Amino acid sequence: MTFIQDKPEDFAAAALDGFCSAYPRWVRRVQGGAVRATQTPLGKVAIVIGGGSGHYPAFAGYVGPGLADGAVAGDIFASPSARSAVNVIRAVERGAGVLLGFGNYAGDVLHFGAAAERLAADGVDMRILRVTDDVASAPRDQRTLRRGVAGDVVVFKIAGAAAERGLTLDDVERCARRANERTVSFGVAFSGCTLPGANAPLFTVPAGRMAVGLGIHGEPGVAEAPIPSAAELAKMLVDRLLEERPERAGSRVATLLNGLGCVKYEELFVLWTHVEERLQAAGLTPVAPEVGEFVTSLDMAGCSLTLTFLDDELEDLWLAPADAPAFRRGAIIAAEPAPPIAAESEREPPVPPASEASRADGRCVASLFGRIADAMRQAEEQLGRIDAVAGDGDHGQAMSRGSAAAKEAAERACAEGAGAATVLARAGDAWADRAGGASGALWGALLRAWSGAFADDEPIALERLAAGAMAARETVARLGGAKIGDKTLLDALDPFATSLAQDARSGRSLASVWRKAAGAARWAAEGTAQLTPKLGRARLHGSRSLGHPDAGALSLALCAETVATFLENSPT
Amino acid sequence: MTFIQDKPEDFAAAALDGFCSAYPRWVRRVQGGAVRATQTPLGKVAIVIGGGSGHYPAFAGYVGPGLADGAVAGDIFASPSARSAVNVIRAVERGAGVLLGFGNYAGDVLHFGAAAERLAADGVDMRILRVTDDVASAPRDQRTLRRGVAGDVVVFKIAGAAAERGLTLDDVERCARRANERTVSFGVAFSGCTLPGANAPLFTVPAGRMAVGLGIHGEPGVAEAPIPSAAELAKMLVDRLLEERPERAGSRVATLLNGLGCVKYEELFVLWTHVEERLQAAGLTPVAPEVGEFVTSLDMAGCSLTLTFLDDELEDLWLAPADAPAFRRGAIIAAEPAPPIAAESEREPPVPPASEASRADGRCVASLFGRIADAMRQAEEQLGRIDAVAGDGDHGQAMSRGSAAAKEAAERACAEGAGAATVLARAGDAWADRAGGASGALWGALLRAWSGAFADDEPIALERLAAGAMAARETVARLGGAKIGDKTLLDALDPFATSLAQDARSGRSLASVWRKAAGAARWAAEGTAQLTPKLGRARLHGSRSLGHPDAGALSLALCAETVATFLENSPT
Repeated sequence: MTFIQDKPEDFAAAALDGFCSAYPRWVRRVQGGAVRATQTPLGKVAIVIGGGSGHYPAFAGYVGPGLADGAVAGDIFASPSARSAVNVIRAVERGAGVLLGFGNYAGDVLHFGAAAERLAADGVDMRILRVTDDVASAPRDQRTLRRGVAGDVVVFKIAGAAAERGLTLDDVERCARRANERTVSFGVAFSGCTLPGANAPLFTVPAGRMAVGLGIHGEPGVAEAPIPSAAELAKMLVDRLLEERPERAGSRVATLLNGLGCVKYEELFVLWTHVEERLQAAGLTPVAPEVGEFVTSLDMAGCSLTLTFLDDELEDLWLAPADAPAFRRGAIIAAEPAPPIAAESEREPPVPPASEASRADGRCVASLFGRIADAMRQAEEQLGRIDAVAGDGDHGQAMSRGSAAAKEAAERACAEGAGAATVLARAGDAWADRAGGASGALWGALLRAWSGAFADDEPIALERLAAGAMAARETVARLGGAKIGDKTLLDALDPFATSLAQDARSGRSLASVWRKAAGAARWAAEGTAQLTPKLGRARLHGSRSLGHPDAGALSLALCAETVATFLENSPT
Repeated sequence: MTFIQDKPEDFAAAALDGFCSAYPRWVRRVQGGAVRATQTPLGKVAIVIGGGSGHYPAFAGYVGPGLADGAVAGDIFASPSARSAVNVIRAVERGAGVLLGFGNYAGDVLHFGAAAERLAADGVDMRILRVTDDVASAPRDQRTLRRGVAGDVVVFKIAGAAAERGLTLDDVERCARRANERTVSFGVAFSGCTLPGANAPLFTVPAGRMAVGLGIHGEPGVAEAPIPSAAELAKMLVDRLLEERPERAGSRVATLLNGLGCVKYEELFVLWTHVEERLQAAGLTPVAPEVGEFVTSLDMAGCSLTLTFLDDELEDLWLAPADAPAFRRGAIIAAEPAPPIAAESEREPPVPPASEASRADGRCVASLFGRIADAMRQAEEQLGRIDAVAGDGDHGQAMSRGSAAAKEAAERACAEGAGAATVLARAGDAWADRAGGASGALWGALLRAWSGAFADDEPIALERLAAGAMAARETVARLGGAKIGDKTLLDALDPFATSLAQDARSGRSLASVWRKAAGAARWAAEGTAQLTPKLGRARLHGSRSLGHPDAGALSLALCAETVATFLENSPT
């Protein structure tokens, strides 16, 4: 969907205006496109690129020293007119001829071809380079019919470096053609893109499926498949491109992992881990890979992988400096690689010695965290939903992750023979470390404070347990900076700890004392629905939040209840 | 929606692995984050930044010379643990102390605060900087309670430059705090973001509306409003931020227009044109503005504007070189600004002299283009839909834009007293120039070729009209490289021109001859539904396209019929 616009019919031109006005160090606007704002030496071959708009950074984002001299821009997804191309070329031509590069589309071929003819008639040495990297668009033996997609970027970068280096037009053209012959791309789309002013996308992909072999102008793919894992997607993309490996190609490949618009950076980086692994498994070394958005298609969700099989000359040009708004290569601040970082010790120190009774209690604590982790996993979605009313909705995930890590750490400590105090402390540290978020910090501190009431050489007594709960309550109040009634975890923890403390000497069983305290926590947690939140960002959403209980208080009650059930069913 | 992932719980860590492995020139991975891969001098203040993941380029994309020394990364939208922060800080600390910067969120405050305490206990001079730029999150008199959003980038950039310059920790902290005090941000969201592994977004915004005052962790906004035009949105963002202008602030502002994920670059550039205008109207000069994606929120569609009211020292630091994967400032290739480009003459040459009869015919041609433009505007959506089956769906827009431009050019030519041949030629040139795309090139050439059969000093005769149609047919066949039966415009143009030629000497009226030819064009255009496309990218989608007529042939038939109706209703 296009959300920000004035008149849809002026969208592409206005976007180019804004781009040139934001980045005057690199570009300036001319009718039909953008040209370098910096001086180009007489006698340098001019590199002019272009095509329809809607693909930023393609094409104007690639204008600058070491890359293009000018970019011609059409309307959204529509090739620019011959007149625009002529105008841009005239503004940048410096007497050494022009390489005019664009993706192989009917409209671009017609308009750029017409422009080249007009300028050739005026005596300008014009060379045309149609990029044809998209393997999905025609079989290998009809390579010249293929479309140009993100391979544009690698081919133009190489051509730009060749021109910047002062090569003749013949040599620039030769390098660019070889780069194109050795460049292949393959992509997938998960959703279509919507033209400015339109209400519906140009195509749709059913939920859970992807279009294979997408185009960059909203053309649907040539096949459809279920969305695979990142690992499987990497395999699909890499394997298809490896079929195109030229004979006698070396082992080094320029690599571009391109997002089409609404597949985000983190997803591309996850995919990259597998792409790199598979390339290496195939004996290939990615050279100066680029992972990001290079040739987009408005808001299409999709990605493509581009490989250029390098030789020495192409690699040299791929690595040469470039300085365009959307593509820079080369150091700005001189810096040497740092020496290796001393290997971090990830190992925990050995557990302190413990009595047999405390070790048995420790194993009991570890089992308890097993139950809590199960309960939190089951409640994850519900807690997330409640949290989303006022917060960022990650409370369920944080509790689930934290309790699972606590369980693992507790079991590890038990296996090393730790007593109850150490088991609980390590569970708390692991919870804080793995859960992140405010709740992770508070739960970690809560458990660590609680563990301070125990020792590794004596069994857990009910009084120590109650003292630990009160210490936990104090720590949470101090660190979280909340007061009772602020609609936080503390609203449930306070009555819980108080109830335990009151009944600690009652002579009743641990299970029964704990159940009563858990009931107090539950009562208070449900009661937070009547409170208006006071703290943190929840404060911003008070009006919406009123009527919903606090997720942190609820999860504390749930943990307390889980422990109560465990105690009731335990032999001791 | 997150489309590319393996296990959702490992998503953030895998993304950071991929980032570090793709960009080893800048960064390397340590437990809990990323640190510079380049050597940092002993005695330089270390800048460590961080927060939850899901915000790339924040935060790891800002690690590099002139910016941060290390970034701590939590899980998606969850603050990292104190342990991670300690580990990252230990890897980059060089004896001159550490500025630890992060957005003001409860979890980050807790975890980073704990990390700072632990390191301070070890003798490291630690300073904490909570960024508080989001004006929507608390009133101005409670500025320290505000959240940190995209203002992070400006504040960290300034702190990074101060440290790189060799300033003491006291001075780095002073500059960073002043930058934060003078930095304000305000944003809107058009749709929510979805956590990896989740099926639904954290919040939704009704179609056509936007959330005002969004957070970057999926927090919904504090108000809701209809989506305004780009101009109105710019006014809303700028005006709100101007309320925060500090007393005695100068006129220069660092400016960051940030996309949250699925608002794309072109939209931001369109918005930028208005933001810049409004800032200038308020007497402010944007300094080295940045327009793009700097602090994202997974796939949230939204944007925010950040202003930093500069003084001389802050401006100097904002402009200093920086070299991080996602933020670079400073030239890589030395280049001087180019001299101004000679003003282009946009004016068309004067129209050639014309006879009165030919002028009358010219006015008639201009009226005809008025009808055609109306018809194309009405048919725009339908033609786009048909085109989308095999192509990129822009045929309707291209025809609508082209015919509207042709009408305007024809009217302009008439007003200057042009004859029919010139009116038609100029209409064709305008069509080609404005429509773009393959159809624009072909229609422009078609009309120009047709106009060659006329002269400006004689009235249009039916025979010349027919000869012109045949010339148009030849031009389209030559330029388009298509044959009859290839499922293109030519399939309708050929029978149309042939019919006109056959009947030119029949003695029947122009209106009747034309109507018959238009009928032949319609018949042939409908018949293209039986053809499999042969050319261009349509070839790729042959199987889907069979059964649908060709959009180009249909639009030709529609134009011919529109002219027929006009002729039938004309007095002459």
